[in-house]
Amino acid sequence: MERLEHHASFGGWQSVYRHHSAVLNCAMNVGIYLPPQASNQRCPVLYWLSGLTCTEQNAITKAGLQQHAAKYGLIVVAPDTSPRGEGIVDSEDYDLGMGASFYLNATQPPWAAHYRMYDYVVQELPTWVENNFPATNARSIFGHSMGGHGALVIALRNPGRYRSVSAFAPVVAPSKVPWGQKAFQAYLGDDQLSWQPWDTCALIQSAPERLPLLVDYGDADQFLTTQLRPELLQAACEAANHPLTLRLQPGYDHSYYFISSLMGEHIDWHGAALLD
Amino acid sequence: MERLEHHASFGGWQSVYRHHSAVLNCAMNVGIYLPPQASNQRCPVLYWLSGLTCTEQNAITKAGLQQHAAKYGLIVVAPDTSPRGEGIVDSEDYDLGMGASFYLNATQPPWAAHYRMYDYVVQELPTWVENNFPATNARSIFGHSMGGHGALVIALRNPGRYRSVSAFAPVVAPSKVPWGQKAFQAYLGDDQLSWQPWDTCALIQSAPERLPLLVDYGDADQFLTTQLRPELLQAACEAANHPLTLRLQPGYDHSYYFISSLMGEHIDWHGAALLD
Repeated sequence: MERLEHHASFGGWQSVYRHHSAVLNCAMNVGIYLPPQASNQRCPVLYWLSGLTCTEQNAITKAGLQQHAAKYGLIVVAPDTSPRGEGIVDSEDYDLGMGASFYLNATQPPWAAHYRMYDYVVQELPTWVENNFPATNARSIFGHSMGGHGALVIALRNPGRYRSVSAFAPVVAPSKVPWGQKAFQAYLGDDQLSWQPWDTCALIQSAPERLPLLVDYGDADQFLTTQLRPELLQAACEAANHPLTLRLQPGYDHSYYFISSLMGEHIDWHGAALLD
Repeated sequence: MERLEHHASFGGWQSVYRHHSAVLNCAMNVGIYLPPQASNQRCPVLYWLSGLTCTEQNAITKAGLQQHAAKYGLIVVAPDTSPRGEGIVDSEDYDLGMGASFYLNATQPPWAAHYRMYDYVVQELPTWVENNFPATNARSIFGHSMGGHGALVIALRNPGRYRSVSAFAPVVAPSKVPWGQKAFQAYLGDDQLSWQPWDTCALIQSAPERLPLLVDYGDADQFLTTQLRPELLQAACEAANHPLTLRLQPGYDHSYYFISSLMGEHIDWHGAALLD
């Protein structure tokens, strides 16, 4: 592994590392925030998954997460959003290929060779973090938009593995919206039954663990009614009696201005669970 | 004027406007943060000046200023760092021309036609802000690196006009360091006497107002000993008995990670002065 960046931040250190992922079969950049507490103790880990077109840079430069992570003593891990680099298949569209992994394991050519972000985020990345940094095995996960989808799906499919989960403006019913349908058809094929394990609203129905969800949307989000559809999450949670805190924040859009404004409340949520 | 961006942020609004500057003879982008309090009252204004290579975007996306401005009810105005666009003379160097105005009034061709950022920031910009937004005429100013130089020079040369001033990693003795010497020779010519009105350490000696300075540097700043030279500011302030709070922050570098980490304390400083 190689350290590409290293900056003091709120008494701790914001770094970017590059390591080889065997699962993805490429080098991956990962943002790692070590809070001040990590200089003399092991700290819980909060995983952040970014949205379409992002890299590891967006969250670490614009989300304002370090201040709040320092308060609770949380390590924050923000990986790149897809395999990337020479030899990785891509598309010309912003919503397919690099920067658009949808955090699943692709089964279809040509994607299946590298696009296995689910296995990377759930298994390989935490093992690497816990082996190389002063981390405990207490984990939580959150994300934005496509990354909110990733966080919800990953928490729902791995009972007991995460202490808490939250999302900013997540895609919750990818099987029913254009971004998800396009990506799932390419990565998973035409059989819509194979899409269900990657769809939050479908997973809620039979979730083996009723981990509470904290989900914020802005009511000025330009993707709200076409791609995000929070009403489907609300209906799925009501039908399954799944605990959900769903908030529509007045005035906010889909940008990192929305994320940074609510970041403190989301890290309060995770801090309470991780330090319990 | 045209509104290019508009995002809810910490209960207020972060916008970017484009307006025609008569002083600079070009269109200028300006970031304007209106705190929640601005929806029903006039608010004091804090001016931010960014450093080399920046535009209005750096501070509004990465400095974490909105949270603290919202707490005190301050409008924050972050202009672009130089005239910019077609027809504006530039250089191929990052430290001369666009993005490198040094916030002075150039006297030499070909720069003098547009590079008059001092007059723009001191006069034209505040007039435009106070005419178009719910602003009082209470003003403070701060900035980073080249913009820290700009903030200090502007406050020192305009007694009574600013309630407070502070700087992150400012260039304080441009006449004595490579960045400043290169820019001043191009913009002001070879006569070093003409450089003195644009040099903080030279201005301190006979400052008509002893407005206290809050100045932070990171001790891991790669420009500390070559371009920034805080020891010259300390000596100038001691010689003139000018009130200075000069701090060397352990571990911090020259980046926005440094700025965002200390932003709360700087806005505490300005908030106390502006709401006095």
